[in-house]
Amino acid sequence: MSTLIRVLASQVASHVGEVITLKGWVHNVRHLGNIAFLLLRDRSGLVQCVLEGELASLPIDSESVITVSGKAVVAPKAVGGAEVSVVSVDVVSKAISPLPFEINKKEVKAGLESILDHRVLSLRNPKIHAVFNIQTRLAGGFREYLVSQGFTQIFTPKIVATGTEGGSNLFPISYFDQKAYLAQSPQFYKQMMVGAGYERVFEIGPVFRAEEHNTSRHINEYTSLDVEMGFIESEHDLMDLEVGLLRHIFSRVTAECAPELELLGATVPEIGDIPRIPMAEVHATLERKYGKLATKGDLDPEGERLICQYVGEQGKPGLVFVTRYPREVRPMYAMPAPEDATSTASFDLLMNGVEITTGGQRIHLPEMLEESMRSRGLDPAWYGAYMELFYLGMPPHGGFAIGLERLTSRLLGLSNIREATMFPRDRTRLTP
Amino acid sequence: MSTLIRVLASQVASHVGEVITLKGWVHNVRHLGNIAFLLLRDRSGLVQCVLEGELASLPIDSESVITVSGKAVVAPKAVGGAEVSVVSVDVVSKAISPLPFEINKKEVKAGLESILDHRVLSLRNPKIHAVFNIQTRLAGGFREYLVSQGFTQIFTPKIVATGTEGGSNLFPISYFDQKAYLAQSPQFYKQMMVGAGYERVFEIGPVFRAEEHNTSRHINEYTSLDVEMGFIESEHDLMDLEVGLLRHIFSRVTAECAPELELLGATVPEIGDIPRIPMAEVHATLERKYGKLATKGDLDPEGERLICQYVGEQGKPGLVFVTRYPREVRPMYAMPAPEDATSTASFDLLMNGVEITTGGQRIHLPEMLEESMRSRGLDPAWYGAYMELFYLGMPPHGGFAIGLERLTSRLLGLSNIREATMFPRDRTRLTP
Repeated sequence: MSTLIRVLASQVASHVGEVITLKGWVHNVRHLGNIAFLLLRDRSGLVQCVLEGELASLPIDSESVITVSGKAVVAPKAVGGAEVSVVSVDVVSKAISPLPFEINKKEVKAGLESILDHRVLSLRNPKIHAVFNIQTRLAGGFREYLVSQGFTQIFTPKIVATGTEGGSNLFPISYFDQKAYLAQSPQFYKQMMVGAGYERVFEIGPVFRAEEHNTSRHINEYTSLDVEMGFIESEHDLMDLEVGLLRHIFSRVTAECAPELELLGATVPEIGDIPRIPMAEVHATLERKYGKLATKGDLDPEGERLICQYVGEQGKPGLVFVTRYPREVRPMYAMPAPEDATSTASFDLLMNGVEITTGGQRIHLPEMLEESMRSRGLDPAWYGAYMELFYLGMPPHGGFAIGLERLTSRLLGLSNIREATMFPRDRTRLTP
Repeated sequence: MSTLIRVLASQVASHVGEVITLKGWVHNVRHLGNIAFLLLRDRSGLVQCVLEGELASLPIDSESVITVSGKAVVAPKAVGGAEVSVVSVDVVSKAISPLPFEINKKEVKAGLESILDHRVLSLRNPKIHAVFNIQTRLAGGFREYLVSQGFTQIFTPKIVATGTEGGSNLFPISYFDQKAYLAQSPQFYKQMMVGAGYERVFEIGPVFRAEEHNTSRHINEYTSLDVEMGFIESEHDLMDLEVGLLRHIFSRVTAECAPELELLGATVPEIGDIPRIPMAEVHATLERKYGKLATKGDLDPEGERLICQYVGEQGKPGLVFVTRYPREVRPMYAMPAPEDATSTASFDLLMNGVEITTGGQRIHLPEMLEESMRSRGLDPAWYGAYMELFYLGMPPHGGFAIGLERLTSRLLGLSNIREATMFPRDRTRLTP
């Protein structure tokens, strides 16, 4: 019987009448005298296994890895309409008992710190598990759509000699006898790859931010979905691209992750068009509608929440592009707005109250860029190979970046970004 | 005319008779009296643009970014059978002249250091450009095949508290007030994600090796294509998976990258089966065939080259799995071979003389793993969350990792791994 090919839990119903082998984890066992009901869990889901006679009294601990052989039988009340009438059970790897916490209930009864400390265990809970089944499809949809639009995937270095945003928030590394840093973003490199003739590029990779604050929306290492595109007319080309991209990603998740979405009680928004509102208008709207006085320059978290609420009150999904950020809150490479040099051709995308994307057109003319650097006290000479890019023939271009964990947590309504991160790194957490 | 939608160079032939707009770089201009032939290059390739009268005398420098409008006309001798009879040219972004080196010849006449120093420019050379068009498809094919086999993409931290291989070759980071390191591999995390119930996982991400040596086959940061799979019977399941994976990747590159392969003079091997030869047999063969005495434990570079040559002499592609590496050259988590505890259930895949993959079955039983750690002077207590994994119910499992840059360079016959790396990091190079 050991030579039988493994059947996944979700496939049992299509093997009724056959003797099959399953492999997985013991989700739960209920002993009822000389019968026991064991729920076996594998990557495809759960299936009920019925143990009778001597088998019913076998000591089997929850979360142990087992191999089960038996006959697939019809069971109208069981998940999937079938169960396994067990002939043999083999414990492959025994789990300790008691476990740090139980994961076979709907919710894990443990604090977030304990959930993260015992990450392997907590990820086995079906609801927590579902988060990352969805996340893998978000990343897959991102890649798929961009490849269909002629984008090339790039792999750029995470060990860098200088920061992209002027030197703050950098983690220093000892690189042999040189000083180096962890990349805050692939910004310079994605622009360089546009200029290297690939024109349209994307990267899926880690970025590192040495930010001191420890909040529910910040982590110090996250996965950035980066896009950069050459030959644009304005930042609206980028927002158009992002709308098409999100439509594709969301429709894929809707089509492929129905059980996960149901388990999480999440609804994926149907995106028609996403409003694009200049910052000045955002401030005016928030003051008029909610009596909120404008903060200087950037939107504060309350402003981000309220403008999404405002859009929602217009009957649209809680997604909004805020455009025309002032130059002082944008990096030196941000393209000034054509009608107002104190403002930029840039945008943020807010989703359900939190920024998930920052983007915009970049300066492509070397004189303008050098002027922008100098006006901030930066010396163009510090930016060797990046600065050379603009003297080699550089098209108008721009791009954006989506935080994968932020997108996941906004989409699924998770209250802390750590819940959307496999192994988070924050101000104090370095393990597991 | 500026409202016309851009046409790519490769699409000109399908617009014959129409007035079109193109955008790209000036690859080359030949002035012949009152006519000039300009080769425009964009991400799709090259197209000839014919400038007559006043336009022929316009000063246009190579590598400047231009917008061209004109009529697509049949031109049997031109690439693609069509060219553009130009009506207007607009220089969008002027390139400096002279350039650091010319890139519009078949080969770039510059040393590797200069090619890497001016990476944006060198990547515009069609032959160098082609390398990364292929690399993006290698990574895409990797993802595509594994998703089709039920694998989940994972994103695991690159900032870690401890090394996976015992502490050598680590780059230290200042992580606020804690000591941390750059991850040498996602090894522990991919095993943890198998144990977390995802069973089959892959990661495409950077890894960091603080190796002092500066050779043509080493870089200090590279892209690792990592795979880990639960519920295996032996390491042969992993080699079977890798054979299927490489077949898929290679057939995709063959189908989609014919022009790039031709430019590079590369032939993608057709993989039937890949021989699996135990280390002892490799040593015996090399001694018998080439008079090469066995090195202790591992194969040296000459041995790697010769065993590939041997397989090639049998009329097969230069790919070979070397199996049964001795325990002393494998990490503490390597599963001992069932018939010989001094050997391991592990393998390397060599391609055209260089190792591109290391893999094997891992120890999944906690007692065996603790014993293996202690025999190497390692304390299981150092491995908190990793060690816990094996007490929570862990299936038999294993995996492998393919170096993306190594795979690219082997496939394309590049002599230095830096040629297969967008922005390499080595013992001395931190820029661009």
